[in-house]
Amino acid sequence: MKFCSSCGSSVIQKIPQGDNRLRYVCESCDEIHYQNPRVIAGILPIYEDKILLCRRSIEPRVGYWTLPAGFLENGESTLEGAMRECVEESLANVVNPQLYAIFDIPQIHQVYIFYRANLQTPVFGPTSESSEVALFAEADIPWGELAFPMVEVTLDHFLEDRKTGHFEVIREDIRRPWTSKHNPPKS
Amino acid sequence: MKFCSSCGSSVIQKIPQGDNRLRYVCESCDEIHYQNPRVIAGILPIYEDKILLCRRSIEPRVGYWTLPAGFLENGESTLEGAMRECVEESLANVVNPQLYAIFDIPQIHQVYIFYRANLQTPVFGPTSESSEVALFAEADIPWGELAFPMVEVTLDHFLEDRKTGHFEVIREDIRRPWTSKHNPPKS
Repeated sequence: MKFCSSCGSSVIQKIPQGDNRLRYVCESCDEIHYQNPRVIAGILPIYEDKILLCRRSIEPRVGYWTLPAGFLENGESTLEGAMRECVEESLANVVNPQLYAIFDIPQIHQVYIFYRANLQTPVFGPTSESSEVALFAEADIPWGELAFPMVEVTLDHFLEDRKTGHFEVIREDIRRPWTSKHNPPKS
Repeated sequence: MKFCSSCGSSVIQKIPQGDNRLRYVCESCDEIHYQNPRVIAGILPIYEDKILLCRRSIEPRVGYWTLPAGFLENGESTLEGAMRECVEESLANVVNPQLYAIFDIPQIHQVYIFYRANLQTPVFGPTSESSEVALFAEADIPWGELAFPMVEVTLDHFLEDRKTGHFEVIREDIRRPWTSKHNPPKS
């Protein structure tokens, strides 16, 4: 940030009175420009014993598989955002959504909020954001080609919880460096 | 937003290519300025059979009672933010935090994330943000003087859950107009 979005003057970084953090401040109009983490809302879509994943056709991580998720927009709830992203990335309309996971990724200023939900029928397909959309049984999950740590963590929890049928809401920090359980770094 | 924070030129509102929402866009440097909901992280602090509340000394809702909570900062997790806000607003250090509630308030672009947690000792006090900090037994909760709907909703759930000792994570939308259960509008 170099310029004030309210008045167009140059901004400086300083700690405002009564605050304890550096902020971008406009010395012309006194506006303080706060910068805060963003929320990413998504769905873990289930059909029978399979999980729906999307192969990304946009950066970052083009070609890798992910769960449908994206930035929450102003004016929508996390559930509405998650359902919207699921349609935008996979064309899948899901039902019976249940809050399932919150992941904090403080290094990149992101909070993920995931709902698990069901496809009533196996209707889905590629979109402008996904080159391929497919259902995976546990044995077929492409562990080596997942786009982000949160995908692996969510799938691991779900496959474990499914054994007991008890799905407690997950709350975890995902901090870097992060090590995959399925693809540990080669020594 | 009137000016581009990157280059200082005037911004316009338009739907960028590949998007479906109006965004602030700089036609000089092509930057798209997204605006997204903010996260508010907070604590439901418990000591024995009592709940800690803070009387606000800052706008909005000066003089009304609230749970310690505030905007999540870049670089911290929701749990870290909640613990920080609890100290900043009440001087209370809590232990054993458990995810307890997510409230979506889409009209004002906010997502609240609350943890319930315990005070080991009844150590707390007023701060620059709270003129008074106090523990309330159920019978003494100032229902008519709560600052925000989310405070009433959180307290109602907690008092109900406490009867059974089973605290499932709450996920609710709080939409306006909102009607208090304890202080219905006078007819």
